[in-house]
Amino acid sequence: MISFAGGFPHPSWFLPEVEEITAEILHSKRSVALQYGPVPGLTDFREFVAERMTGQGMPAAAENILITSGALQGLDLVCKVLLDAGDLVMVESPTYLGALATLNNYEAEIADVPCDESGLIPEALEAMLAGGKRPKFIYTIPTFQNPSGRVLDRNRRLKLLELAGTYGVPVVEDSAYAELRFGGEDVPTLKSLDKNQSVIFLGTFSKIFSPGIRLGWVAAGPEMIEHLILFKQATDQMSSSLSQLMVYEAGKQGLLEKQIALSCDQLRQKRDWTMAALDRHFGGRATWTVSEGGFFTWVELYDRSVDTFARLPHAIASGVAYVAGPSFYANRNGGHCLRICYSLPEEYEIGEGIKRLAKVLLE
Amino acid sequence: MISFAGGFPHPSWFLPEVEEITAEILHSKRSVALQYGPVPGLTDFREFVAERMTGQGMPAAAENILITSGALQGLDLVCKVLLDAGDLVMVESPTYLGALATLNNYEAEIADVPCDESGLIPEALEAMLAGGKRPKFIYTIPTFQNPSGRVLDRNRRLKLLELAGTYGVPVVEDSAYAELRFGGEDVPTLKSLDKNQSVIFLGTFSKIFSPGIRLGWVAAGPEMIEHLILFKQATDQMSSSLSQLMVYEAGKQGLLEKQIALSCDQLRQKRDWTMAALDRHFGGRATWTVSEGGFFTWVELYDRSVDTFARLPHAIASGVAYVAGPSFYANRNGGHCLRICYSLPEEYEIGEGIKRLAKVLLE
Repeated sequence: MISFAGGFPHPSWFLPEVEEITAEILHSKRSVALQYGPVPGLTDFREFVAERMTGQGMPAAAENILITSGALQGLDLVCKVLLDAGDLVMVESPTYLGALATLNNYEAEIADVPCDESGLIPEALEAMLAGGKRPKFIYTIPTFQNPSGRVLDRNRRLKLLELAGTYGVPVVEDSAYAELRFGGEDVPTLKSLDKNQSVIFLGTFSKIFSPGIRLGWVAAGPEMIEHLILFKQATDQMSSSLSQLMVYEAGKQGLLEKQIALSCDQLRQKRDWTMAALDRHFGGRATWTVSEGGFFTWVELYDRSVDTFARLPHAIASGVAYVAGPSFYANRNGGHCLRICYSLPEEYEIGEGIKRLAKVLLE
Repeated sequence: MISFAGGFPHPSWFLPEVEEITAEILHSKRSVALQYGPVPGLTDFREFVAERMTGQGMPAAAENILITSGALQGLDLVCKVLLDAGDLVMVESPTYLGALATLNNYEAEIADVPCDESGLIPEALEAMLAGGKRPKFIYTIPTFQNPSGRVLDRNRRLKLLELAGTYGVPVVEDSAYAELRFGGEDVPTLKSLDKNQSVIFLGTFSKIFSPGIRLGWVAAGPEMIEHLILFKQATDQMSSSLSQLMVYEAGKQGLLEKQIALSCDQLRQKRDWTMAALDRHFGGRATWTVSEGGFFTWVELYDRSVDTFARLPHAIASGVAYVAGPSFYANRNGGHCLRICYSLPEEYEIGEGIKRLAKVLLE
């Protein structure tokens, strides 16, 4: 089976140094690593995350940081704070399927904001807001979006923040892939452009260190963080102390940057192989994102009668997996679309996998 | 500061072998330990937990097990499945303050079931049920209860299950301390006496291995587990793969049993020191639990005008901490009560701490 499905980091990115780091932690800090810690996270680690964000143009202190078990838990806790059943949330269309599932858990009403190649369309958002729709928050993945791989351009970011300010709507910025840029020019995060504390930033170490140890964070104003801490405590008490110490040590030793560089090198190559294979097998039959970071390419078939969801079992029978377009839409649109994740397969598998895909989807 | 407050395992219980086990996992299974795993848990680990439960008289297979990030997350997910805002849940009085916080998060209406020295009083529960109260579930900690240290006796367990069957009410059994018995005779878990799959069992490795790595489980019928898995996925995706492999290896190498034996030896001594100090300083002024397992003694002062909540700052100023009674009641009863956790302080500290407590609470 060649999988373009799950957004997994490639196992070769996991640095062997983690073994020694972790052994050392369990040798010299066992009573911290294995013990309960503060609900919002170990203080040194919160400071480390805050300093890292500050270094990325997002000034923060420990009081702005809540450590979570991955970015999705950040969204889950934000929902606990902000949502009642039936409340409106605006999302990009398409958007991350995990976020849709979380929002559905809270019985949110989900409104799709139309998007194009440059991401969410501010004019469309403005029309919805001016028309009287008042979401409890807007959920967005502005950089290397999941599933589309798109990047919201700088002007749109400013316009989005302006609208958020005008209408008093918080923006939840999911930044899972933003550090994995392997081409093009950096675009500032929404958080770094935010003048009014209207951005709740969701970060994760899943894509740049390890998803297996479940570690992410929320960065927001101290008042929001205080609310989130109360819910975090009653949800799962705290995130793993051991995981926090592992990332802290990896960070101090420069291993996060080392792993990011390694990941980006591989992702750039894999993106290229994927683009070449798509040109070869889907040329003239579809469009797709030429992403400059992250894990994904979003393919839109010209033939809108193709049902990628219905075709999935056939694809799997042919030894290739992807995620069908409708999974990324609250309203199950996107039947002629699919997400291709190129992080996991090797060069040969990418060529062969895309060829199989073309056979299943185009013939 | 001498702390009788948090229910922390003593750091000396954390076995040094964990260092080698973890290093070996990160050496030979790094690509599993640091990677995403299945939502309900790694299959081998679910089987390990199921076998362990089977060995304890609670026959289970992997399909009965969902791995969680601690027992409290088990309760949080059960709430997500079973509760809407305003729904009724019955709890022991007093009960675990973390559970009260979780139930409050879901805006549950909480009904206290009266308890005595043998735990929840089935006749009181029956009267509430017969009177028309229909909870979505009953939450109970039948063995070495938090905060009271009490054990529900076998007959009451059978009666509780009978009532649950008659009225079709699920019972959520929080078993956090049940394996830490250091005296008296074993009483079967509710789960082991359950004939109708009416028990949802919450287990944790926090007290018998490490709270810092955040690992627990839910054991229930496969249908309930399927529901819980859907919510787990949209809440935090999965629990730590590394944590699962650590407990799996510790279990296979007999270290869980070794740690439990070590913990019980220390807890028995500490319970004895606590009892002796209470006799010395509170004799004739209060009653307390002589617990046969777990971390806690529940002290009820004869003088009902004492407000343990109001006295807490004075106690802390005197260098001793506890958790005040009202924290364990939905209705903030229990002002003349306090929970003493004896797991953390040393022999000298127990004597000195109880002496300081008497000064603050009795003078």
